[in-house]
Amino acid sequence: MSADLRQAALDYHANPVPGKIAVALTKPAETADDLSLAYSPGVAEPVREIAANPADAYRYTSKANLVAVITNGTAILGLGNLGPLASKPVMEGKALLFKRFAGIDAIDIEVKHTDSADFIRTVANIADTFGGINLEDIKAPECFEIEKALIELCDIPVFHDDQHGTAIVTAAGMLNALEIQGKQLSDVRIVCMGAGAAAVACMDLLIVCGAKPENIYMLDRKGVIHSGRSDINEHKRRFVNDSGLRTLEQVMDGADVFVGVSGPDVLSADLVKTMAPKPVIFACSNPDPEIRPELAKAVRDDLIIGTGRSDYPNQVNNVICFPFIFRGALDVRASRINSAMKRAAVEAIRGIAKEPVPVEVLQAAGETELTFGVNYVLPKPMDPRLLPRVARAVAIAAEESGVARIPLPNNYML
Amino acid sequence: MSADLRQAALDYHANPVPGKIAVALTKPAETADDLSLAYSPGVAEPVREIAANPADAYRYTSKANLVAVITNGTAILGLGNLGPLASKPVMEGKALLFKRFAGIDAIDIEVKHTDSADFIRTVANIADTFGGINLEDIKAPECFEIEKALIELCDIPVFHDDQHGTAIVTAAGMLNALEIQGKQLSDVRIVCMGAGAAAVACMDLLIVCGAKPENIYMLDRKGVIHSGRSDINEHKRRFVNDSGLRTLEQVMDGADVFVGVSGPDVLSADLVKTMAPKPVIFACSNPDPEIRPELAKAVRDDLIIGTGRSDYPNQVNNVICFPFIFRGALDVRASRINSAMKRAAVEAIRGIAKEPVPVEVLQAAGETELTFGVNYVLPKPMDPRLLPRVARAVAIAAEESGVARIPLPNNYML
Repeated sequence: MSADLRQAALDYHANPVPGKIAVALTKPAETADDLSLAYSPGVAEPVREIAANPADAYRYTSKANLVAVITNGTAILGLGNLGPLASKPVMEGKALLFKRFAGIDAIDIEVKHTDSADFIRTVANIADTFGGINLEDIKAPECFEIEKALIELCDIPVFHDDQHGTAIVTAAGMLNALEIQGKQLSDVRIVCMGAGAAAVACMDLLIVCGAKPENIYMLDRKGVIHSGRSDINEHKRRFVNDSGLRTLEQVMDGADVFVGVSGPDVLSADLVKTMAPKPVIFACSNPDPEIRPELAKAVRDDLIIGTGRSDYPNQVNNVICFPFIFRGALDVRASRINSAMKRAAVEAIRGIAKEPVPVEVLQAAGETELTFGVNYVLPKPMDPRLLPRVARAVAIAAEESGVARIPLPNNYML
Repeated sequence: MSADLRQAALDYHANPVPGKIAVALTKPAETADDLSLAYSPGVAEPVREIAANPADAYRYTSKANLVAVITNGTAILGLGNLGPLASKPVMEGKALLFKRFAGIDAIDIEVKHTDSADFIRTVANIADTFGGINLEDIKAPECFEIEKALIELCDIPVFHDDQHGTAIVTAAGMLNALEIQGKQLSDVRIVCMGAGAAAVACMDLLIVCGAKPENIYMLDRKGVIHSGRSDINEHKRRFVNDSGLRTLEQVMDGADVFVGVSGPDVLSADLVKTMAPKPVIFACSNPDPEIRPELAKAVRDDLIIGTGRSDYPNQVNNVICFPFIFRGALDVRASRINSAMKRAAVEAIRGIAKEPVPVEVLQAAGETELTFGVNYVLPKPMDPRLLPRVARAVAIAAEESGVARIPLPNNYML
């Protein structure tokens, strides 16, 4: 990052007030009469209603539109385990994105903890406060047991965005890219570089979408995950591949797809050369991808490449998913975000990329043209169609899969 | 409460959106450039700064102006233990008051818990998120150990408003009322009806302000607290009085002061008759006081009476304290709210009541005249002098007593 950008980021956070979010009142609070409704004695009435019927919390409090962005600070961006306090700017940033893109009131909660059980208990204890929980920047493998336990303990959606947001956007982009390349997900050989939270979630969702487990090669720092290894946890173990191929060099030879969720510059142009015809590369390490698009394109012209960056085509960015999947889930009071809802989000995102792009989106993206193809497989973050389309698809999927607790509102998001 | 008021309160909470508070953005978030500062990649800079210097959280995040209103729902208003979820409208109401009166961003957190240790651990684990914690509606005696433990575990102010807010406003009003009656706190005999959290805190603070412990008679449902009783907890035990007087009738005979923090209609006009000349009665049970002012005044005309209600003179209302004591504490990053700060709040509140009342305060209160005297011993909630005067006094006291972590800003609140 340049010194200028660095200073601009610090100034942005410090001035004119510290931080990025504040509390606003949604009801009049000027007169003594206002306050007699907002607080004593009037407030006793909604209290009694909620005590008699807990679902009335959605009617009389801000719970209906409130998401907590919760972390323990163990895997902050690419910066590692810097503790809960240091993660606060990121969590506030996520809250800002929730509000900006989907009108959701989100607050950040940074949690000190001794172990996963302590973290789980703390979050479960405060969960009633919220309509949903977005887990963020929690390191693997703890993130898996934490999310699983909280989904069981809480009756509101709990969603680890680093896993599932990444997976949904990756799957949407991948399915579109493969369509452009004339390939089927069920046929392709997939190399997944990285075996952390995002990697596991991406491969899980690709399998749900049709990928064959035996065609997936997942690699960590020590190479391909296979059943002969004694150094892999239960989450990696689900992706053992006993084909006998053990190195990145071996699995890249003839591979159709490379998904990088690892670190910068781990993929060389020489290996890109060995991939099958018409390959797809999603190099998602941020800000420095597994391979620079210009390096990959220099060695072959039949590939599609996406990254996590906004300054290259095909940005794989969670923000085109998480605000909208929560919007849809909240609006039908879904008890959880299930596989059907994730697939619905994938399809809604895919569909938008195939349609003509509105002028204001082109302008916001600084582009003169965006047409479904090798340089445009995913919608841009500023695309206003994402909110209604993804939220509606998710809400319908929630209703159809039986996790919605209220019916889809009439003409919802139409 | 009338059916009309009841419906108005429910409508107020439900429409046009559920609840009373929302999240607002304090920074631009429109363009891709804005988002590159608010989130990736710019947000990494404040993260690094805070990791290196934790105090920078006050510079780059909303922590500096953020208070959590936290409850376990065990003593909601006068309604009792209805659980955390049902308490949410009250906690949001408190957040509304923080914002309305002192510009403090406050969010509510409702905590499920198995026991006090579980509650304490949960709150301590999330405390880094906030600049201060306002505990609310937690039943006695658990509230005492909870507050004590959290003050030790957290390096931010933790303040149980039901105790200390009530105590500060009661002490301010009592000192002014006694001044008007020509009495000294050190000389008066005090009857405290009620032995819960507010009662204990009120008597503790009156003692700090000069009351003699041997002149205080605290009563619970079974009568005067004395050392012969085996049914009293350690908190009540601090107030044993072994004068031999055992009943309300006995202690009211010749009493100068009655403080009621118990329940409706427990004080009869006949007992008011037996009090010493020029007595002071604070009947704070809400909405129905220990005795109606018109009943007390019917039997004698030399008394001063205050209640928790806005429709009688001398309202004893926490809202004239808690927003401002937190304002002052936050603005010098006090590590706690100590006795010196509470006394400073008492004196600042007292002082305002002795000065001429601004026209806008008269109008807001629907009064034509308010002059320091039997019907005006405490400032009105809408008095705009409370914010600067109480906050400044508290901040100065924090600095002088060594708990401020930054100096008083220049010309603070002047």
